[in-house]
Amino acid sequence: MKRVDLFENGFSDLNFRNFLVQDSPYFKILNFNFKAGQELPIHSHDIEGQVSIAILEGEGEFLGDQGVLLPAKPGNVLISEISEPHGLRAKTDMRVLVTIAPPI
Amino acid sequence: MKRVDLFENGFSDLNFRNFLVQDSPYFKILNFNFKAGQELPIHSHDIEGQVSIAILEGEGEFLGDQGVLLPAKPGNVLISEISEPHGLRAKTDMRVLVTIAPPI
Repeated sequence: MKRVDLFENGFSDLNFRNFLVQDSPYFKILNFNFKAGQELPIHSHDIEGQVSIAILEGEGEFLGDQGVLLPAKPGNVLISEISEPHGLRAKTDMRVLVTIAPPI
Repeated sequence: MKRVDLFENGFSDLNFRNFLVQDSPYFKILNFNFKAGQELPIHSHDIEGQVSIAILEGEGEFLGDQGVLLPAKPGNVLISEISEPHGLRAKTDMRVLVTIAPPI
């Protein structure tokens, strides 16, 4: 059993920061911290599995295929196939929790 | 791709509420909402896999084996084997995101 405090993780002016929370045979958990204006560009991988993206702090937009934009605010969770285009753009400083299963 | 707004989910005076966010071959994602004083009693299942518990709002304590208590506040994530005793107690109203992989 381990406890991680994501709010100790910082931000960078260069690009969003990526912290590994857990990597096991079952899932990979990451914390991404975005400064306002930073983004995880829309991307996909041609493999089986799903990803969840939970917004912990801040606001922005989830990015989907063909220009789809969905509001992203605390309490929002996006579920996507790993093979489906997905991304995220921050309007304010934003902390998110990303879980990938199976891990890639 | 689907987006869920967990903050639309309510609370109950009777027991913590349990909302299914996602159930797939890869993971099961749940939102538990606790009123102050409610708890997920310490428990374990004798199966392979891990669980993550992320605190979205409110404060309380993660419960571990042999009386272990760890503070639980926004930004905290607990990672536990499913087979390892784990639980959660709310001091204030609390919203948490639980991810189980593989799903049970």
